[in-house]
This record gives sequence, C-alpha cells and structure tokens, in this order.
Amino acid sequence: MRQRTILLDERLDDAATRGLARDLVRLGVEARPLHERDRVVGFVAVLDDEGAARMAKKTGVCRVLSAPSPHPLAGHRGGGPRVVRVRAGSARDHVEIGGDAPVVIAGPCAIESLEQLEACARAVAGAGGRLFRAGAYKPRTSPYAFAGGGSEVLAMLREVADRHRLGVVTEVLDPRDVGIVAAHADLLQIGARTMADVALLREVGRARRPVLLKRAPAATLDELLSAAEHLLHAGATDVVLCERGVRGFDPASRNLLDLAAVPLLRLRTELPVIVDPSHGVGVRSAVLPMAAAAIAAGADGVMVECHPDAGMARSDGVQALSLEVLPRLFAQTHAIASAIRPSMATAAE
Amino acid sequence: MRQRTILLDERLDDAATRGLARDLVRLGVEARPLHERDRVVGFVAVLDDEGAARMAKKTGVCRVLSAPSPHPLAGHRGGGPRVVRVRAGSARDHVEIGGDAPVVIAGPCAIESLEQLEACARAVAGAGGRLFRAGAYKPRTSPYAFAGGGSEVLAMLREVADRHRLGVVTEVLDPRDVGIVAAHADLLQIGARTMADVALLREVGRARRPVLLKRAPAATLDELLSAAEHLLHAGATDVVLCERGVRGFDPASRNLLDLAAVPLLRLRTELPVIVDPSHGVGVRSAVLPMAAAAIAAGADGVMVECHPDAGMARSDGVQALSLEVLPRLFAQTHAIASAIRPSMATAAE
Amino acid sequence: MRQRTILLDERLDDAATRGLARDLVRLGVEARPLHERDRVVGFVAVLDDEGAARMAKKTGVCRVLSAPSPHPLAGHRGGGPRVVRVRAGSARDHVEIGGDAPVVIAGPCAIESLEQLEACARAVAGAGGRLFRAGAYKPRTSPYAFAGGGSEVLAMLREVADRHRLGVVTEVLDPRDVGIVAAHADLLQIGARTMADVALLREVGRARRPVLLKRAPAATLDELLSAAEHLLHAGATDVVLCERGVRGFDPASRNLLDLAAVPLLRLRTELPVIVDPSHGVGVRSAVLPMAAAAIAAGADGVMVECHPDAGMARSDGVQALSLEVLPRLFAQTHAIASAIRPSMATAAE
Amino acid sequence: MRQRTILLDERLDDAATRGLARDLVRLGVEARPLHERDRVVGFVAVLDDEGAARMAKKTGVCRVLSAPSPHPLAGHRGGGPRVVRVRAGSARDHVEIGGDAPVVIAGPCAIESLEQLEACARAVAGAGGRLFRAGAYKPRTSPYAFAGGGSEVLAMLREVADRHRLGVVTEVLDPRDVGIVAAHADLLQIGARTMADVALLREVGRARRPVLLKRAPAATLDELLSAAEHLLHAGATDVVLCERGVRGFDPASRNLLDLAAVPLLRLRTELPVIVDPSHGVGVRSAVLPMAAAAIAAGADGVMVECHPDAGMARSDGVQALSLEVLPRLFAQTHAIASAIRPSMATAAE
Repeated sequence: MRQRTILLDERLDDAATRGLARDLVRLGVEARPLHERDRVVGFVAVLDDEGAARMAKKTGVCRVLSAPSPHPLAGHRGGGPRVVRVRAGSARDHVEIGGDAPVVIAGPCAIESLEQLEACARAVAGAGGRLFRAGAYKPRTSPYAFAGGGSEVLAMLREVADRHRLGVVTEVLDPRDVGIVAAHADLLQIGARTMADVALLREVGRARRPVLLKRAPAATLDELLSAAEHLLHAGATDVVLCERGVRGFDPASRNLLDLAAVPLLRLRTELPVIVDPSHGVGVRSAVLPMAAAAIAAGADGVMVECHPDAGMARSDGVQALSLEVLPRLFAQTHAIASAIRPSMATAAE
Repeated sequence: MRQRTILLDERLDDAATRGLARDLVRLGVEARPLHERDRVVGFVAVLDDEGAARMAKKTGVCRVLSAPSPHPLAGHRGGGPRVVRVRAGSARDHVEIGGDAPVVIAGPCAIESLEQLEACARAVAGAGGRLFRAGAYKPRTSPYAFAGGGSEVLAMLREVADRHRLGVVTEVLDPRDVGIVAAHADLLQIGARTMADVALLREVGRARRPVLLKRAPAATLDELLSAAEHLLHAGATDVVLCERGVRGFDPASRNLLDLAAVPLLRLRTELPVIVDPSHGVGVRSAVLPMAAAAIAAGADGVMVECHPDAGMARSDGVQALSLEVLPRLFAQTHAIASAIRPSMATAAE
Repeated sequence: MRQRTILLDERLDDAATRGLARDLVRLGVEARPLHERDRVVGFVAVLDDEGAARMAKKTGVCRVLSAPSPHPLAGHRGGGPRVVRVRAGSARDHVEIGGDAPVVIAGPCAIESLEQLEACARAVAGAGGRLFRAGAYKPRTSPYAFAGGGSEVLAMLREVADRHRLGVVTEVLDPRDVGIVAAHADLLQIGARTMADVALLREVGRARRPVLLKRAPAATLDELLSAAEHLLHAGATDVVLCERGVRGFDPASRNLLDLAAVPLLRLRTELPVIVDPSHGVGVRSAVLPMAAAAIAAGADGVMVECHPDAGMARSDGVQALSLEVLPRLFAQTHAIASAIRPSMATAAE
Repeated sequence: MRQRTILLDERLDDAATRGLARDLVRLGVEARPLHERDRVVGFVAVLDDEGAARMAKKTGVCRVLSAPSPHPLAGHRGGGPRVVRVRAGSARDHVEIGGDAPVVIAGPCAIESLEQLEACARAVAGAGGRLFRAGAYKPRTSPYAFAGGGSEVLAMLREVADRHRLGVVTEVLDPRDVGIVAAHADLLQIGARTMADVALLREVGRARRPVLLKRAPAATLDELLSAAEHLLHAGATDVVLCERGVRGFDPASRNLLDLAAVPLLRLRTELPVIVDPSHGVGVRSAVLPMAAAAIAAGADGVMVECHPDAGMARSDGVQALSLEVLPRLFAQTHAIASAIRPSMATAAE
C-alpha cells in the first residue's frame, strides 16, 4: 500500500471524473483530488499494486504514477510541450511561449518615467518584440533604494504597451496587489526573491492568469517545480519557468547563470522555460552571448533589460542593454533558433 | 561631495532634530531623514569633507559616517549590544535576548494537536525555558504537504504558553496575517524563505513589535542586515538575527550551518544573534553538538525543534529532539556560556 | 611609489631588453623580470608616477600597468586573441584553437582497450575531428575505481591517433609522468582536481608545450588565470582554458556548468576558452544542448566524451555520447558558429 | 549477488587470513584483499545473501557490509575512536589526537626566518602546546607570491621544534618531496588544494607515517574520506581529518567553515577530526570564537596560525593570531572541553 498519483485524460467530463472518484471509494481508499483551474485532473490515493493496476485500466485514466509525484500538475504529464498563450496588444492577439519560435521579452528594469517607458516600448516593438517587461514594484535589498512607482505607474505601463501593441509582463510582490497588477498585466511575474513565498503564490494562482515564475537564487529545479505546483494548484492557467542565475562564489559575476537548467527541466516538465541573462550574469557585455547560449540550449525565449540611457538607470543599470542593441538581439535569437531547432528536436529523443 | 550618514544622539528631542535638518538645508544639501519607529535617528545627505566636519561638531550629532551606511538602523551604531526584551509569561515578565545569559527557544516545528503542544510546553518550561516556538503557518515546499493549522491554532498556542508562563515565538508568512499573529505572539518570526519579502517585512515592521529574522539560505550577512533595516525602518521595535544554515553542496546535511556568521555579525551590528541548529544541519545527532558550538562561538542563544514523538512529527521530524534531551541542552548551554564568557569578552576587543 | 607591471613589445631582442633593465636600475628601483619560455616579456618594478610615465615612453615598452597585474602573462596583454596551434596528425599539420573556427575535441574518458580506442578515433576522424582525447591516468575519487591504464597505454593512444591523423590530448596527473606524457601527447591536459597543484603546474610548464587547463570545481576565474600564469611562467608555450562545471547545490546535475565564464574570461584574457559539457553537467541528454550553448556563448571549442558502448564505459559512462551522435555535434557546432560569429564579433566591442 | 565488504578482526594472523581467502574461493567468488599497511584487513567480494551470512559466522570475520563500502579503511569499522599517536619532542614522547584531551596545533603559516620560528615555537611550547606547524612549501595562487623556503628550511624547523620539544606538522606538496619532508616531520600534512591529488596521496601513503588531511574547498565529506582511503590504502599508518572551510558565496569571509562536518564525520568514521579556524574563516577576530565552537562541536583539536608580528606576516597575515593570544586559546580549549565532554559523550549515543 502506498501513495500514488492517478492522472486523468485531458478532457474527461465531470460525470466520468465523479465516477472514477466513486471507484476509488469502492476500493476502500481515501483519495484527494488534484485541481487545475476548475477541473479535477487527477487523484492522490493510497493503493496496493493490484488496486493501482485496476485503476490504470479504467477509461479516463491517463497514467498511474507509482510514486506520488511531488508536483503532479507542474511535472511531466506526457502530453507534449505546453504552449502558453499570452495576450499581446489586443484581445485577439496572442504570443505563444513554448511554441515553434523563441520569444524575446524586453524592457526596463523599473518604470522611471513616461519618456523612458515610451522610448523602450518603441524600441522593443520596432525590433519585432511582442512582450514588454517593466517593474512597477521593485524588491530592493535596501529600504532606501528606489522601490518602483507602485500602482500609480501601472496604468501608464498599460497605456504605453497598448500604444505599441505589446503584452505587459510585470512583477507582483505583495498578495494584496494581485488584483491591481492582474488588471494591468498579461503575464504576472513572480520574482526570484519571492519564489518560495507561499502566500503570494497562492494569491497569484487564484487570479487564474498565466504566470512567469523566476527561480530563486538557491532553489533546486525540484523546488522551482514545487513553486509552479503551488501556482497551478491555486488556479494559475499556465506557468512559464525562468532561469535567472543562482548564487555563485565568484565575484566576477552577480549571479551564476545555470543554463543547463534548460535541458534538465525538459527531463522533468513540459512547461516552457525561458532565461534571463541580464540578472543571470549582471555584466552587460555578457548579456548578448548568454542570450545566444540560452536559445542554443533550447530555451523557449529570453527576457532582457534595456534602458534608453543604460548608464543612468535607477536600478540594475550595469546590466541593461542600450536600445540600439535590441535589433541585434532579435536577429541573433532567430539565427540561432534556425541553426539549432533541427538538431535539438532530435537531441530530445 | 558624497553621500554620508549622519547619526543623531539617542535621545535628541524633536526641536533639536528639526534644527539639524535646517542646518543641512543651509549647507545647501538635500537630506533624507532616517526613521526608527516614530523618531528621526539620522539623515542621509550629500556633503563635502568640510560640511561633514562641520556637522560632526554639532550638538546632537553622534557620528558622521563617511560612506553612506547601507543599513544605518541595523548596522553598528556604537551604543553597545542591543538587548531585546521579549514578554514571557505575563505582562511583567520579560526575557532578555542579547543580555548576559544565552537563551534557548524550543518547541515543535508545527502545531499538530493540543496534546503535542502541551507536552512540548511542559518539557520546555520544565527544563528552564522561557520562550516557546511553534508554527501555525508552515511555508512548505509542496502544496500537498501539511501547511500548519493556521489562525485557528494560534489561540491554542497562546493558551498553552500562558499556562506554562512561556513567551510565544511564531512565524508570520502573509502580510495579511500580521494582525492576528501579533495578537498572539511575543516575538514575531520571519522565516528563511521570506527574509527578502519586502511586502512582508514592511507589514511586520508596522506591528511595532520585536522580530526574529532568519537568514535566507543564500543571503549574505549584508543582505540579512538589509532585511533587518527594512523591519526597523518600518517600525519594528527590535530585531533578533538568526543563522539557520545556508545552501551547501554536500548531501550529507540539509543545510550548511554558517556558524562564523556569529563573530562576523558582531563586526557589523549590535543586534543580538541566535542560531538554529535544527534547520541548520537537519540531522538529529548534530543538533546538540552544534547548539554547543553556537554558544561557544558567542551566540546569544539557540532555537531548536523538539517533539514528544520525534519520529512521528508531521514536518521536519528527522531533526527534532526528543523532549527527554531538553534538560541536557539547557545544562550544556549554561556550562559552555560559563566556560566561554570571560574569554569571549576579551576576544571581542 | 607602487608596484607596476611593465610589458615589453612582443619581439624585443635581448640587447634591448637588457637596456631596459639597466634603465630601471638607473631609476633606482628593484625590478623582477617576467619570463615566458626563454624570453623576458616584462618587469615588475616599484615606480612612482613619473618613473612609470618615463618608462612608458621608452622604445620597446608596450604597456605599463599601474596596478601590478596578478597574472601578467595570462591576463590581458592587448595583442588580440592568442591562437594556440596544436600538432594534429603529422609534424606539418596543425589545428588552431582560438582561430576562426571552433574546435571539437572528442574521445573516451578512459582508455580501455585497443578496440574501444580504434572505434572512437575512427568516429571522431570520420565526423571531421582533428583532436582526440583519451585518459591514460584517471584521477578517481576512490582507490578501488578503475584508474586508467597508465603509461603502458600511451603508446597505443599515440599509434591509434596517428593512424587517424588526430592530435592527442591527454591528462598528466603526476609531476614524474610529465616526460612520458609529453612524449606521446600534442596538448597536455591539467585536470580540474589538480588545477591548483603548483608542483604539477611547474613541471608541466617546463615541458614547453601547449597545455589544456581545466578549471577546478571551486576556482574563481582569477584563480584559473593564476594557474595559467604558473604554467606560462614555468615555460608552457600556450594555454587553452577549459570551463567544465563548478560545484553546485542541486543534485539534478553532477556539476553546474558556468557558461558565462566564456564572456567573462574574454574581459580578462586573450587565451582561448573551450567548454567541457560532458563533465560540466554529467547528464547525457544535456551534452548536445550545452555544447551548442557553449559555441553560442563564444567559446573557441568544446571537449566531449564519447564511447562505442556508452552504457558500458568503465568511467563516467552516464555522460558519454554514443559515437553515432558525433556527426550531429560537429554539424551543430558549425551551424551555430556560422549563425553567431558576426554578432559575437560586434558584441565584443 | 552483489559486492560486499568483509572486514576482519583487528589482530587476525596471516594463516587465518589466508584461510578466509580460501573460503571465499571455495564459495566460488572472486575476492580482492583490502590492505592497510602490510596487513590484509578485509576483502571485497561478490556474494549472495546466503554466502554473506556464512562468511559473517566465520571466526576472524568482524563484519560483512551488505553494500560495498566506498572507503572500507577510512569509514566506520566499529572499533571505537582511533587514537593517532604523533611523536612530539623525542622518540619516547607522543601526543594523542583523538584521545581524551583536545590538541592545539599552532605555528606560523610560512617559515620566514629563524627568529620568527624561534619566537613562535617558544610561545607555543610556553602555552602548553606539543605540536608545531609551519610551512616550508606554500601552495600559493600566484607564481609571484612567496612560496616558502623549501627543503632548505626544513632542517631549521626540525631543530627549533626539537629545542622546544615540539612535534613537527608540515605540508608536502610534491610527490618528489615526500622523502625529505618525512625525514623532518612527525605529522605529514596534505593541504586543501591537493586533497584530491592522487599521485601525492599515494606517495605520502607509502611513507607509512601519520598524515593530517585537509578537506578541499569543494569536497563533500565522502570525498574527504575517499582521499583518506587513498592514503590508508597506500600505507599511511593513520589519518587525522581536518575541516578548514569550504567555498562560500559571502565576501564577508575567506571561506565558509563547515563546523557541522565534525558531528557528521562522527557518523561516518572513527578517524580523529580537527578544525582549522584560521583558514576556515580568514578573519582574525573570528579565530578564537570559532576555535571555541570547534571544541564545543566535539572536534579532537584545532590548528591555528600565529605570528610574532601578525600584521607583517609574509602570507595569510590577516588571519594569524598574535603570540600573546595563545595562552587564552589553550585555556579556552580546556575550559570548553571540560564543559562539553560529559554531554558530548552522551549525545553520541
């Protein structure tokens, strides 16, 4: 007798699901449903080998995992890559993350002024970008550092993004701000410092939106997937994982970008994976090479910081790209994706 | 011209403080006040050497730091060790953390039942303990792990602690729970996973209570002090720092206890420092030796987990001490404190 | 007065060098010559600003570094990328590492048999490879693990490589083996475990050969350059640096491949940099993606392990590529190099 | 059928050992003897459960480990703490490491002059020390740093130590120096940088002397025991393990002293364990507190650096204790040992 995870077929209707729940009760075991959004996608139940074999044969049961998966919603489920659709520019326009083409998410670290936002958005859209990142709330180390403009600048961010038909990616730091951020953003970001903040994960999940989840600087890949599980369990429609550097020992860089997280996550999950080389290294001259490397490693996209006057940025200026470099970043991304996709496809076999 | 921190004398009245603010304006510099609780304790201002010298001579000015201290409230301020008083048992009873004798904070990881709480509290009080720790909210990695009893068990915790005249130490995870936790706890705990969660730090600070702040698994000592600065800046009356292990590379232990943080923090702050050897190593047989080591390294106390039935604990059982071991822990703490205090005093010169 | 490094023009003759030494003596300072192979390439001397300016103007002086460089021979010297030529196949054939095209070094971890060597060499040469790696001495953790065939198999390695017109890359572990290894190898390898082994570095340097230097698992980039400095100072004709993963905290991979070391080393040295994704991750399915990422990050090449029967390798089998995959690795390397080279060139500005 | 380790009784004679080897052959399995010095102390053999049970019952067999121990000589063998005797002062005088009283090994990092050595030795002996450490060969990061006086100063070290009746602890870096170092030292030291240098370990083992083995900055405890296994396998009479700090991420200290290594090694081996707080933290004011902590954690001793003119030391001066502090270190060590020994003994149950 041990705990097992029973995963259901993707489009099982409610009646069939209730039927399977009754079957489990008849087997005499206590079963706990696994929810994803409004749907029950599986059960965790204590079963012996015979019971597990019986359940595996039932119509509507996709798989019975012999170990209880620590993250049944976020981990491998056997349905192929999950493509996350993010609204970009209008209700009818969407960008796919995890689809055929890698995405580039760009924008300033923090929202400083309308002029700065406008300049960045124009450059991002001009280079072919569809998703615009900018921080209204900044989780700064010191209480005296610039902490972002807060809710007041969210409307400005939305307006600028709409003008350039860009989707908005922005971080939410406080469970009490989820409503206002969700009202202005297309992809809600959980930052590295709050990846393990369960109260925040739960509240963001309840907004039933796609979420960009950044890996904490000392989190294992399993812990990253557990945070994604919290989000999906609470109702998040989708999760995009983001590697952004772990804590390293060498003062030569701000963080140690763990690019192998990309192929290693592929072994564990079908969720899309992107890479943030700006925070991941923290040295401007390394951003373009590491963005290239991320795409070559098979990432579904990159997220970078840019600034109209890179040396003057109010936060994280030392790693921001100048706007002139963006077209080269987009061109490089496409060139490498073209060079690599055939062999990557085969390598994943 | 560069940014400097001007620290004021401890009991400067408002008029004198406003006078110094006017002096800074007259010097032609923009000054930003540093608040601790309701009081202005200093200014950050851009000054040349001459201006700094002039300010240093003024009545009411304690020190002018030539570099702007990244954490003027939490860092060294020259006033000797700060002793944190925590209510323990009744309105008139207090325990001092950072005073002459080291403290032992003990209790179960999570509140599981009245019986478990009662057994632990009796053992802690019986061994001579004054502070009782127990978690109502547990920041578990998985959404399927036991997450604590929540607000419903807080009243039970308070009642059990009162019966044994113990102060209550418990974690708050969500900014929206600060009110209810503050109503039941004597020392509010910020856990390692949320150390950098600025929204939580700010809200806990506003409760104007003493706070136990645990170091995040990849935080530098400077980042720990910055989190303390957030708390003090927002109004926390006091902060006790807690080393609880950083992320290590050796699977032999759950975390890598960085005990040198104790003497290294002494070089940076007068806030009291305690050590949690239970989470810090995560292996039961190492808890007593490392508690002894913590006191020998000069810590102001230790915090340990215990459980009436250590093998059956619903969370972190592998590191919980059995209740029978508590008297030995208290005896050991006092024996080492007696052996070490004379030489430590001199070593700190 | 402070210590400075005076670097000489590349082809200064002995008389001019002695003249500059006399000039330093006349300035009244004690100067220590910096040797590279048989040549004096500079001096370290204590000079005031005026003396430094005077020396900088002298014919034959290339640069005067105001700080004494911790690694004047291995660090930036301003002469553009250093291309390392390695004999490959015959006395007239050479491969360039650090030139226009990235190199792929491949072969088995350890030499197990003539059949295994022959199969690997045939596959490497067939895929277009020019450099063949195989270990005769293996620095195994346990004294009971297979430690390689030792000097007896070196002649076999040489013979097989010659038959396929491949250059030989092999590790030397013991200062007393340098002679025999140098007699059979074209590029002498210093492994990660012995990177800081000064006795070995010195002896290998004295062999006056090109050396492949792997980064130790906890070495900073500065420490890697210091090890290169030991080699060059002792007489090594050239050094190729190799990133092969640092110690990480996540059991998901054997090591944490620090790919940003490639762009970060470019800021510090003109020595060529290659990457070993086999040891760097230690998970077979990640080797091809991370080899691709290395080239995209700007590396001068990759070094991988392969084995005719990957599951049966006597050491490190879990990360060895099967021989059938080699052509795809070579094709991928060239495709990415073509995609990336134009933008990398500009990014390096 | 799987690999097992068969450990023999401590004083089994050769005839009985050969008899057991024949028994294994009769069981039809291939057995490999485990040598310690000149003696066979066990066998590694592939056995089924029945064969293992049969061997376990034989006279002369101490234990049959069901898993093949990765380090049968260095790991737990069930015979109680191994006390290492080191000659100190004369052929009849010995110090016990791992016995009842903790030892303090002290001396300068590097041998600089007769005066410096003499002053240190006098202070160490005066404080009650029996073992004197000083480096003749220093594994410096840079080829331009002071690398020690080499073999020329070893005789001076021996003479000074003899005059003060002290045992000599000194590092050997190069396999070719083992003979000369062994001729002058009582306890041969393997440094952290060369812990995994198999050629050196083997040669030092062959000297059949007690060895002090320092943990490499990124070595797991299992890797440390494997290095000890290499030494014992090659003939070392005894090994003393030394924790000296692992690589950390916080620039606040040079290394991260992993003091929990002491109780965690107790779970794995009976070899004595000492701690080097000088290199382990690298900050002078932390040395005494961390030496105290090491003894409280149960270490068998500490090793510290001291210098007659601490600010002027030619290497590692920032962490050297002044000679005046030594008596306090010895007093503190004894005071804590007295305070802790009773409870430690029980804690180890």
